[in-house]
Amino acid sequence: MPGSSFGQLFTVTTFGESHGPAVGAVLDGVPPGLPLAEGDIQRELDRRRPGQSSVTTERAESDRVEILSGVFEGKTTGTPVALIIRNEGARSSDYQSLRDVLRPGHADWTYLAKYGQRDWRGGGRSSGRETAARVAAGAVAKVLLASRGIEVRGYTLEIAGVRARTFDAAEIERNPVRCPDAAQAAVMVGKIDEAKAAGDSVGGIAEVTVSGCPAGLGEPVFDKLEALLAHAVMSIGGVRAVEVGVGIEAARMRGSQFNDELAMEAGRVVTRTNNAGGIAGGISTGAAVIVRAAFRPPASISLPQASIDVRGEPVTVEVRGRHDPCIVPRAIPVLEAMAALVIADCLLAQDARGVRSR
Amino acid sequence: MPGSSFGQLFTVTTFGESHGPAVGAVLDGVPPGLPLAEGDIQRELDRRRPGQSSVTTERAESDRVEILSGVFEGKTTGTPVALIIRNEGARSSDYQSLRDVLRPGHADWTYLAKYGQRDWRGGGRSSGRETAARVAAGAVAKVLLASRGIEVRGYTLEIAGVRARTFDAAEIERNPVRCPDAAQAAVMVGKIDEAKAAGDSVGGIAEVTVSGCPAGLGEPVFDKLEALLAHAVMSIGGVRAVEVGVGIEAARMRGSQFNDELAMEAGRVVTRTNNAGGIAGGISTGAAVIVRAAFRPPASISLPQASIDVRGEPVTVEVRGRHDPCIVPRAIPVLEAMAALVIADCLLAQDARGVRSR
Amino acid sequence: MPGSSFGQLFTVTTFGESHGPAVGAVLDGVPPGLPLAEGDIQRELDRRRPGQSSVTTERAESDRVEILSGVFEGKTTGTPVALIIRNEGARSSDYQSLRDVLRPGHADWTYLAKYGQRDWRGGGRSSGRETAARVAAGAVAKVLLASRGIEVRGYTLEIAGVRARTFDAAEIERNPVRCPDAAQAAVMVGKIDEAKAAGDSVGGIAEVTVSGCPAGLGEPVFDKLEALLAHAVMSIGGVRAVEVGVGIEAARMRGSQFNDELAMEAGRVVTRTNNAGGIAGGISTGAAVIVRAAFRPPASISLPQASIDVRGEPVTVEVRGRHDPCIVPRAIPVLEAMAALVIADCLLAQDARGVRSR
Amino acid sequence: MPGSSFGQLFTVTTFGESHGPAVGAVLDGVPPGLPLAEGDIQRELDRRRPGQSSVTTERAESDRVEILSGVFEGKTTGTPVALIIRNEGARSSDYQSLRDVLRPGHADWTYLAKYGQRDWRGGGRSSGRETAARVAAGAVAKVLLASRGIEVRGYTLEIAGVRARTFDAAEIERNPVRCPDAAQAAVMVGKIDEAKAAGDSVGGIAEVTVSGCPAGLGEPVFDKLEALLAHAVMSIGGVRAVEVGVGIEAARMRGSQFNDELAMEAGRVVTRTNNAGGIAGGISTGAAVIVRAAFRPPASISLPQASIDVRGEPVTVEVRGRHDPCIVPRAIPVLEAMAALVIADCLLAQDARGVRSR
Repeated sequence: MPGSSFGQLFTVTTFGESHGPAVGAVLDGVPPGLPLAEGDIQRELDRRRPGQSSVTTERAESDRVEILSGVFEGKTTGTPVALIIRNEGARSSDYQSLRDVLRPGHADWTYLAKYGQRDWRGGGRSSGRETAARVAAGAVAKVLLASRGIEVRGYTLEIAGVRARTFDAAEIERNPVRCPDAAQAAVMVGKIDEAKAAGDSVGGIAEVTVSGCPAGLGEPVFDKLEALLAHAVMSIGGVRAVEVGVGIEAARMRGSQFNDELAMEAGRVVTRTNNAGGIAGGISTGAAVIVRAAFRPPASISLPQASIDVRGEPVTVEVRGRHDPCIVPRAIPVLEAMAALVIADCLLAQDARGVRSR
Repeated sequence: MPGSSFGQLFTVTTFGESHGPAVGAVLDGVPPGLPLAEGDIQRELDRRRPGQSSVTTERAESDRVEILSGVFEGKTTGTPVALIIRNEGARSSDYQSLRDVLRPGHADWTYLAKYGQRDWRGGGRSSGRETAARVAAGAVAKVLLASRGIEVRGYTLEIAGVRARTFDAAEIERNPVRCPDAAQAAVMVGKIDEAKAAGDSVGGIAEVTVSGCPAGLGEPVFDKLEALLAHAVMSIGGVRAVEVGVGIEAARMRGSQFNDELAMEAGRVVTRTNNAGGIAGGISTGAAVIVRAAFRPPASISLPQASIDVRGEPVTVEVRGRHDPCIVPRAIPVLEAMAALVIADCLLAQDARGVRSR
Repeated sequence: MPGSSFGQLFTVTTFGESHGPAVGAVLDGVPPGLPLAEGDIQRELDRRRPGQSSVTTERAESDRVEILSGVFEGKTTGTPVALIIRNEGARSSDYQSLRDVLRPGHADWTYLAKYGQRDWRGGGRSSGRETAARVAAGAVAKVLLASRGIEVRGYTLEIAGVRARTFDAAEIERNPVRCPDAAQAAVMVGKIDEAKAAGDSVGGIAEVTVSGCPAGLGEPVFDKLEALLAHAVMSIGGVRAVEVGVGIEAARMRGSQFNDELAMEAGRVVTRTNNAGGIAGGISTGAAVIVRAAFRPPASISLPQASIDVRGEPVTVEVRGRHDPCIVPRAIPVLEAMAALVIADCLLAQDARGVRSR
Repeated sequence: MPGSSFGQLFTVTTFGESHGPAVGAVLDGVPPGLPLAEGDIQRELDRRRPGQSSVTTERAESDRVEILSGVFEGKTTGTPVALIIRNEGARSSDYQSLRDVLRPGHADWTYLAKYGQRDWRGGGRSSGRETAARVAAGAVAKVLLASRGIEVRGYTLEIAGVRARTFDAAEIERNPVRCPDAAQAAVMVGKIDEAKAAGDSVGGIAEVTVSGCPAGLGEPVFDKLEALLAHAVMSIGGVRAVEVGVGIEAARMRGSQFNDELAMEAGRVVTRTNNAGGIAGGISTGAAVIVRAAFRPPASISLPQASIDVRGEPVTVEVRGRHDPCIVPRAIPVLEAMAALVIADCLLAQDARGVRSR
């Protein structure tokens, strides 16, 4: 499959460019009988939608989803669920002056190298807009997971070097940066506004937790659960690092510190700590699955940068238009979507194995 | 595919348990006409082999590879290349006392949850021994890459908190930890020996660099080059974090710092810096592709740990036998193998697209 | 992939039910730079459209295709090409009386067994309407093939036992049964009209020829060219047999009769006969690839049939509504589409192998 | 996957050339806990082995299988099952005179076109010897199917135009052509011996029946059960036609004749007839699944044939050595193996869907 599909049993295929007629997704393998309505998907899309606050791009898009197939009388039928979101508010004129320019940090040059041509309007397929299709697909995965008691929750841990110090789940969706620490959230917003005013952008770190996940998910060797999650998360534009559990800190621990001891609790096998992030030997342990992603600062900045044009001539680039000074807050639902797609796929794979998950 | 295959056009399928008759790999999609001999593979296996120094396990295995198919008159034929390595020196008796024990940090519990049973001899399929098959397969990928002028090189950056400060490529294969800084290598060895004496283990960080890689490799959206690399690298047992380019530090940079400016040099498009690790928009830029992996300390330690047995009864575990106190030095060829498999697969995918890579 | 995708490098995923909002297809892996307009696709859809003559269903559908992505300035970009066709003229009321009935010869019972439920409106996903998406996708494949000098042509060989005796290519699209023998075409039409008047339906045999196909396409062992073609053709609803070259007659020939002798002609390797249908050892020879499909008579007939309802109670079924008394004429473009998708996929796979096709 | 793998959840990858060190298969996705021993596989291999009677090649091979992985204490573990069969009795010298010759009806020319080179010893990968690996893999699939009450049985219907007239299941494995009609079997043997004496070869037709198959297997649209079976069966070397149920005769029936009426019997949905061969809408009905394959006469004959050599020069070919004058009897276990692999894969896919098969 040439890159626009993900998953083996719960499979999503996306399509669409930033300034084309629509973006969308086709989900194949959705189990039959799940209650599904456009509202379930719209709710997630609204979380990703631009124009939510000062820290996101002002591009106005209503991002209305339409279900084209696979749902009958309010329930999934087991056949492909196709979703489309018409593009609105695309201003290709913003990009007219950039049509021959290869912007630093963007995919302009690499798409040209790969395809011998490119759709220069708003980044085309390389635009963050493609993540709307991921979020729509992830919303369907979340419905499946919810029916099994599994919850996927993402939040911001750090922006521009400012780190959350407390964790209040109720706070996450209340502040514009989706941070579980209200006080630090305010500092983060200040940092973003400051960078934006300077014509610059900032990065950050987000975390996603999957709770209620049964033991036994993930395939040994190449398709370890953490490998699938790393694939999924690293495929989100702008991610430069993926960590599982304690992540990079594991490299500085001793085995006696890192190993999660096993115990019985209420008749279930549990780990006393969760340094491994809910995965051992590539297979879920039953503890919360924890993954983190580090996002680079967005490439579109209005500060002048040296680059070249498509003829190889030097140019100075100043990217105007409406851009996110920090992608992390809007990337949270995307991160959740990708994690949900992985877990849904692994659930079905384990069902196929005929061993009841514990 | 249920987890033991990797790659779409240059595909490897591995098999084998630690204490079974053999481990091996089948490569399908190897282009015809490549010169290939057992020596090409044996050389890489020898780098991964246990018993190389005080910092690795003393388990003695000669790890002789046999090519069973796909090579005729010294060249690949285009048909599957099957490789087997007979297991030797397995001492299942070492594990007899552990057969009912679920070791902390190991896959004992998760395999049981997944399969309802497990091969308790030496970790079975979850043993690091399966990486011998990866290294063998990666050696074939390296032959393809070499024919295109692409080189894959791995080395140790950090062990037990001790970090390399200099980079001397010639030094890498000269010291037992495969570190490009000879002085720090000696410190690392000391740290490993100390942990081993204490019945404990340590972690570390390794890096792999792919040079000579053409621009245009990787597929947009889900199969971005960094996503495939993250998948590949995170699938190696013990990896807890994967970084590309500056990695996690990208989260603390501003766009104006992070963006790699483009320029022309000797008629080729180049980037003045390489913060992105040779990948933009999921596609290779032509600069060196740089990936890092953080390894946890090995799970097998002889210090006593609390755990349970298969009946859920509490036990104290002390893992005896022959184990690596630090996996990083022997993981270097595995890391290279996985990177090579990804690049080989992407090369063929790009060939299929009909746009000549630049 | 759960059944709605086809192809590995030139991949199509379809979606949509007979009476849902739309049917459509997403093509991933379309090479960049191909000229593509909605007209290229519409032309093929018009050949499949119902209501073309007395021998097809009267259901009126304009079947207008919309390209949602993957085309920029009149050319493919290399990113997914999404196509949708809104459903019109669906009269679900025709099916209201059948909602609890399991019709003989239809997929009513098997969908219920598979999914535990079904969309009873017009057959849902099992409707022949899904083939509109195949034809749309196949039209894109044909554009690729045409750019390489490959032509795919289908026609009717036999209907209701009446067989074509002559072959006039120009005649095919001139008569309502797409038969290369005008005289026999008229007899076929008579047989169809007669069956229709009797409330019954008839079957037939169609053939597709791929000319200009280079030698070297198809993968040995499981993905032989004829195996992929058989898969593709047998996946069209109503096909009960697939033949390659002389087909079933091969079973009655001697080796000395069947073997196609090789010779040189104008500097190219040719076969003096083409009993093998252009494929030897699973790989194309360079001669025309020839495949035939036998179609059963359509299941929807108005004659009374004994069956059961969803509660298992016996019922008598008389299927009213607008149905095709013979599917073969409208299946010709579907057959061409499936053959084109296979050849396109094999072409790209062979490009990836790096041996120039001859 | 480049052609040597088959199946999505119950996946087999094969390797090996006729005159290389070994042929073999890796099965991934085998459910854990199945009792499996080498004897289960050897029994099937013995049925395919050459030298069984006058109607098969005299090449002597013991075809001993070795299980390299995936089985522990007599049961499958859920990890890959690797099987190898060492090649013996290969006489490459038989082929020395043919190394530059492109034999009619063989894959010599097409492998050369595809790969730019070929292993001329005994046909290399294109040899019927690769089917030993299929039979070994199919034996494992049969163990899974047997555990679910599903039986796969193949037999010869026709050889050299001589057709079975009666069906006595007990007779099948008693005569050298595996025909359920003992009298006609004797006539078939005579026809084969006669062709052999004349330096020629003959074709025939085989059928495979899957009984005990639950309703609900197969995926709509592209992966209909009959499409997967057609793919599987047409991938066997020498097959030129595949039929399901009444097959090609369906094209000459009316809908009122062809449609299988539904009824209840002992609380189960049944069809009164089985013209559809146990499949409706691409999904199994619960009735016996019936597939037929037409085999061409083997390409290797000792009668002189005109051809060319690798330089394009005309030559006369007389194939000496040890060859099967009719492949059908030895193809029966291969046909069963391919059918078993398809059904096993579909079973697991349906398990993953979470609807209990009926």
